[in-house]
Amino acid sequence: MSPPVALNYERFQQLNLRLDMSRGKPSPEQLDLSQALIDEAALAGHRARDGFDCRNYGLASGLPEARELGAELLGVSAAQVVAAGNSSLELMHDALAFALLHGVPVATGEEAATSTPWRAQGDIAFLCPVPGYDRHFAICEALGVRMIAVPMRDDGPDMDRVEALVRSDASIKGMWCVPLYSNPSGAIWSDATIRRLAAMPAAPDFRLFWDDAYRFHHLGDEALATLDVHAACAAAGNAERVLMFASLSKVTIAGGAFAWLAAGPRNLAWWQRHSAIRTIGPDKLNQLRHVRFLRDRAGVLALMARHRALLKPKFDAVEAVFRARLGGIEGVSWNTPRGGYFISLYAPEGCARRTVELAAAAGLVLTPAGAAFPYGDDPRDSHLRIAPSFPALDEVRLAAEGIALSLLKAIEERRG
Amino acid sequence: MSPPVALNYERFQQLNLRLDMSRGKPSPEQLDLSQALIDEAALAGHRARDGFDCRNYGLASGLPEARELGAELLGVSAAQVVAAGNSSLELMHDALAFALLHGVPVATGEEAATSTPWRAQGDIAFLCPVPGYDRHFAICEALGVRMIAVPMRDDGPDMDRVEALVRSDASIKGMWCVPLYSNPSGAIWSDATIRRLAAMPAAPDFRLFWDDAYRFHHLGDEALATLDVHAACAAAGNAERVLMFASLSKVTIAGGAFAWLAAGPRNLAWWQRHSAIRTIGPDKLNQLRHVRFLRDRAGVLALMARHRALLKPKFDAVEAVFRARLGGIEGVSWNTPRGGYFISLYAPEGCARRTVELAAAAGLVLTPAGAAFPYGDDPRDSHLRIAPSFPALDEVRLAAEGIALSLLKAIEERRG
Repeated sequence: MSPPVALNYERFQQLNLRLDMSRGKPSPEQLDLSQALIDEAALAGHRARDGFDCRNYGLASGLPEARELGAELLGVSAAQVVAAGNSSLELMHDALAFALLHGVPVATGEEAATSTPWRAQGDIAFLCPVPGYDRHFAICEALGVRMIAVPMRDDGPDMDRVEALVRSDASIKGMWCVPLYSNPSGAIWSDATIRRLAAMPAAPDFRLFWDDAYRFHHLGDEALATLDVHAACAAAGNAERVLMFASLSKVTIAGGAFAWLAAGPRNLAWWQRHSAIRTIGPDKLNQLRHVRFLRDRAGVLALMARHRALLKPKFDAVEAVFRARLGGIEGVSWNTPRGGYFISLYAPEGCARRTVELAAAAGLVLTPAGAAFPYGDDPRDSHLRIAPSFPALDEVRLAAEGIALSLLKAIEERRG
Repeated sequence: MSPPVALNYERFQQLNLRLDMSRGKPSPEQLDLSQALIDEAALAGHRARDGFDCRNYGLASGLPEARELGAELLGVSAAQVVAAGNSSLELMHDALAFALLHGVPVATGEEAATSTPWRAQGDIAFLCPVPGYDRHFAICEALGVRMIAVPMRDDGPDMDRVEALVRSDASIKGMWCVPLYSNPSGAIWSDATIRRLAAMPAAPDFRLFWDDAYRFHHLGDEALATLDVHAACAAAGNAERVLMFASLSKVTIAGGAFAWLAAGPRNLAWWQRHSAIRTIGPDKLNQLRHVRFLRDRAGVLALMARHRALLKPKFDAVEAVFRARLGGIEGVSWNTPRGGYFISLYAPEGCARRTVELAAAAGLVLTPAGAAFPYGDDPRDSHLRIAPSFPALDEVRLAAEGIALSLLKAIEERRG
């Protein structure tokens, strides 16, 4: 099914395709890997390890064994972990909403204190490494938190810039961080970057929103890891600087798994205090099913190796097509991610939006140009986010052709 | 196992019981009624009616068939219903948080407009019929919404008082309503009450938080129903006045089911806009399991009849003990609920707190005295909330004895 090299945009358009590469959705084959969660739900039953009846109310911070699994995976103690509902995104939203409405804990020696609610502090801002995750930016925009873009490099955000901004502007209360295989640039944040984030002077109520979304989502041969941010913050005397979020949505069932929050004792108590007002507890039956299916870190890693076997060929296919079609084209580049769900394709300035339009006209849905930037505004109109996970391998190959041809046509039009 | 009539508080204390009557938790036998949700999860599979793969992201407003089930149960159209996560409490919390942060839709003819965010309007308040649900009041307290107590009567809140307050105080933005078998008084709100709530002049951003928690939770022979509040509000020209919340937690699995929000088109669009920022969607597999297990309204009603068969004898046992021990005691009364999860026991003024203490000293955990009032403050220190659902029937009988004996001792001490 490899299309002929002579394929051009017009011929591609005539294929009348309907392909969606816009979101990082797992493929049906990936979801099949966890089918036992559905097929063998009866085996998991409803009794927790200690006999607790998971069919009833209670355990506001989650099933103990679900917290322990999170602790093992995230490298913290179970007391530092909350096992919650089906979405880490909502934990991030709610953490920001709680901060706006109630403030966050601030360290004052032995004393527990809380900052002024962020909403009452007037204009507040978050640092947003770009390109970044559109849903992070949507939360800030919806909640009225000003976003300040910071350039992303291969080893994380431009730390000189981050430090200078945080030093000079006390209204900066937080920063979005996807430390491993950053969405969508694939950046792997270096030890030095993380140490600087942990140690830099910042407002006492400054928080790193640490979205460890791809911690086990390796594509390369090596299972890479970033520096332990909790330890780095603690070592720098800023133990409560980081709120870590993670989810099993891209491990088992997308939107049908559960999420964790991991944080220092004051942040955790703060979270528990405010979330206990919202809910009597998460769906513990689903947590129990997951713990019995995944078992432990080794179980998760074995499952992720099977995800990799399905995902890697798709990423390789995009890479091969881009190399064949776009190699050597001036102003065009892309990254070869070692993990995560996205490829970033950089078009010559002013070509991204038109590429997405041309792709759409050929039946190929891409993430809107600019989506990876605060307020949807890519100042160079250059960045494209490619999500190869969902379509079948043949379709991914075809879609990559379509993207390349759309980009080449956009460049041609601009030259014309 | 009926205790001897000669049992007194001291002898009761020597029984060394450990009984918890503090929360409205279903009993294991009630949870067993929905065991097929666990045992036959594999049969429900993962394909929605239209073939949608419920294992993947999407359907932010819930599975269409889960919305339709909600529509059938709540008497609205499916377009007016969102099927969400495992807790209606969190829908209520988030609705209030969204209103504080973003404002709510206000009717201006054909124009869609949004009020000033409640947080930016300064002091705002909610009406709280008392006795009421402690978790409602906790949400207001946590979010800094002033609570104004309004007396509850058998046919709903004192409407003269409600209308007078709402007319004179524009800072009143909402009201907590449990229209059928009110928690914890068992009140059944009359048609006239509901019509007055629907029609009374109020701030344009005033909302009835309509917690239809016990809509199908009948204890009597008759399946009672309250007036259609959506229709009443629409008839009065206030179609967007009401936000209705409901949950399957006390139908199937407590904390492991799902919840609905039902509202007019502007409120619903407002909800969808803000909740889409938080989450990519609810756990649709759980919704699918529920729809296949419950099927339709008839399926829910049949299941609720089996709940009633388990619950009714417990309520009857409490009633019998109270009649035997407390009948004719001056200043003591209780209600005989026709549905719901609670009995309200009214002690002579100044005796409730002491009764709870005495019960605790005898190994019997009751809801803290005052919990059913804003800020935990029962001005008469008279109200006790009894939750007979969880313990086994024999234990309920024994616990009712303990409550009665604790109350009698508290009265005696006071006289002493």
